Amino acid sequence: MGFTLDRERLVETMVEQAEIGATENGGLHRLALSDDDKAIRDWFDEQLTDLGLDVRVDVFGNMFARREGADPDADPLLVGSHLDSQPYGGIYDGALGVVAAIEFVRELEARDVTTERPVEIVNWTNEEGSRFQPAMQGSGVWAGALDIEEEYAKTDEDGVTLEEELERIGYKGDVPAEPQYDYDAYLELHIEQGPFLEENGKDVGVVTGVVGFTWGATTYYGEADHSGSTPMQYRSDALVAAADVITQVRRIPSTLGDRTVGTVGYVDAEPNSINIVPGEVTFTWGFRDPTREVIDEAKERALHEIEAAAEREGVDYEWEERMDVDPVHFAERCTDAVADAADELGYDAMEVFSGAGHDATYANHVCDTAMVFAVSEDGKSHTEEEYTSWDDCYAAANTYARAALTLAGRAD
Amino acid sequence: MGFTLDRERLVETMVEQAEIGATENGGLHRLALSDDDKAIRDWFDEQLTDLGLDVRVDVFGNMFARREGADPDADPLLVGSHLDSQPYGGIYDGALGVVAAIEFVRELEARDVTTERPVEIVNWTNEEGSRFQPAMQGSGVWAGALDIEEEYAKTDEDGVTLEEELERIGYKGDVPAEPQYDYDAYLELHIEQGPFLEENGKDVGVVTGVVGFTWGATTYYGEADHSGSTPMQYRSDALVAAADVITQVRRIPSTLGDRTVGTVGYVDAEPNSINIVPGEVTFTWGFRDPTREVIDEAKERALHEIEAAAEREGVDYEWEERMDVDPVHFAERCTDAVADAADELGYDAMEVFSGAGHDATYANHVCDTAMVFAVSEDGKSHTEEEYTSWDDCYAAANTYARAALTLAGRAD
Repeated sequence: MGFTLDRERLVETMVEQAEIGATENGGLHRLALSDDDKAIRDWFDEQLTDLGLDVRVDVFGNMFARREGADPDADPLLVGSHLDSQPYGGIYDGALGVVAAIEFVRELEARDVTTERPVEIVNWTNEEGSRFQPAMQGSGVWAGALDIEEEYAKTDEDGVTLEEELERIGYKGDVPAEPQYDYDAYLELHIEQGPFLEENGKDVGVVTGVVGFTWGATTYYGEADHSGSTPMQYRSDALVAAADVITQVRRIPSTLGDRTVGTVGYVDAEPNSINIVPGEVTFTWGFRDPTREVIDEAKERALHEIEAAAEREGVDYEWEERMDVDPVHFAERCTDAVADAADELGYDAMEVFSGAGHDATYANHVCDTAMVFAVSEDGKSHTEEEYTSWDDCYAAANTYARAALTLAGRAD
Repeated sequence: MGFTLDRERLVETMVEQAEIGATENGGLHRLALSDDDKAIRDWFDEQLTDLGLDVRVDVFGNMFARREGADPDADPLLVGSHLDSQPYGGIYDGALGVVAAIEFVRELEARDVTTERPVEIVNWTNEEGSRFQPAMQGSGVWAGALDIEEEYAKTDEDGVTLEEELERIGYKGDVPAEPQYDYDAYLELHIEQGPFLEENGKDVGVVTGVVGFTWGATTYYGEADHSGSTPMQYRSDALVAAADVITQVRRIPSTLGDRTVGTVGYVDAEPNSINIVPGEVTFTWGFRDPTREVIDEAKERALHEIEAAAEREGVDYEWEERMDVDPVHFAERCTDAVADAADELGYDAMEVFSGAGHDATYANHVCDTAMVFAVSEDGKSHTEEEYTSWDDCYAAANTYARAALTLAGRAD
């Protein structure tokens, strides 16, 4: 029995959401809990209300709506993603997942399909972690991985708290921010944000898990000496020590695995003056891999290098852990549903591991989970140049909808 | 015939000048052309006027006063240094040199000594190059190495021009900013700002020259990719490329000479976010050495590394020269005068090369020049912790005064 989405309507819905918080360059500036976020939440509410669904909002702003199935007491399927964006992001990151979920529900309505289980659709609060940290904040609180009071108190760079903003835009709901039902499964569509699908000429990705990651921050304390009159052997150059580590963070992954990545994204040197030896340098470092042991090994090697560099340069140091998240392996029955859907629809699919964290990471704490990846052109994301062709949007959304139907079960 | 300074008076004069622009921690905040700079200039004027000397100010704020000798037409000796300070500097950097020159002139008066040549004393404008760039600005304009109109137009971080400030504090004089006489020699006392004299247990340094230096700035252009989903082999990480160069700048000097130094003092990464691969990084690099050929070799190797790192990481780059100054070798007759003076006074002296630029660097364009170094405790400078004991101040100032007398010649 066929079940495919209306391509024209998918494109139309995507174009519609892309107007809210649109940038000049065809991207999105739709920060969590901003007025544009309020507008897209209102839009989301409207889409579902028009389908006759009741929308509920929890105390952390996560929005849910239910379409009943044959058995109202059956554990529901949860579908959805996030609608907030990066400061200058693309129109697909998160939004494509929510639109695909909306279109799935619309298609059920259009074809008058009765599912076995209820289907719930969700829009998570603050997945990007750009304006308020951390990322995946809404799903994290909901899954019990983050403490709601701590997260309410988080501030943006202007010192405004998350709770204030949630109230300001009118999305601090009344439902407790925790699973209201015993969900059977969670399925999320997202753009790959990486180059593998395109490089391998695939139409869609069957995501089998999410990498774990570890982030740390290190500060080296040296001596801010005069760069002219201080001989090399007298120096304690905090930036040289940091450079040694940056080089090793680049190298460590290549000794570990083909999916291991290591990054130094942030660096700050003091006094940062052309003719003074850097006396204090802070930088962040992190590794990601599908395997816990590999992450631990990478971290251990990095800490070893951090210490060695300090000794070599004669500087002091301190470091702190910023974040540590276990890898996630999705349940086979869910990933199978996705693989089978792609196969039935005649799409060329491949298994991939997600290198980026998603709401699905936290949902996996609560119920069986899987993801579908859409092709990212050039693997670009977190930029207005982020792009997925309508063909690829449709291929992924179709695969997603069919897999969702499998998990929800047909009662007719 | 003995000629030594009054130690008590030297200390008194040092303590007096240190009150103007004093910081809580016993240092100085006496930025060029600030109100504190005006106050210290007024104080300098007063010291000389009290000695019966006429003070003249040139159009760039450099202050001069003359004490006649036996032959008014003889080429004068020029003594002095600078009175402006770092934002949080010590009380000795520049000031000790001016005070030593004042005390030299005072002693000539006190002992009723008639010199052969006239003796002129100078306070140079903006030696530090902190509030306005570049360093050694007053002596640079005077020596014809810098263009006065360009330097008048330089702004501080609030956008105020140097010329405006000079006028505001009433020190835009009327004498042309160029040598008004055919100076026979210039002698300057300065703290070492390095560790050599102390490490070698010396009382005073006979400075035989000033290192040359070359400064450049490089920007690497990579790709600000998502740190999770972008495999290592797809990255163009501008910070990794910069780290490679920082490491080489550290190493290059050790392959060249024992006085060669290399520094990366400034680095700026964009977007500087924990989970985004750095897409653009700018950093400065520079080398100093007593020899022109060595400086050129260091620069060539650095540029080679900059290019190699760009290729290795797959990033683009551009670089620009920020400054290039030739090494300076002081005239033997002047350095001999200093060495003999130390010897006659029974001080333990050693020859040193100055690793920092001084007004003497530019004065050397105009006439024979030499410097005397005072011991710097721990080699520290450009910090409130800068320190030279009164014993060491006196040893250096005494050596300086005697050498100055030799160069000025005694007519009695």
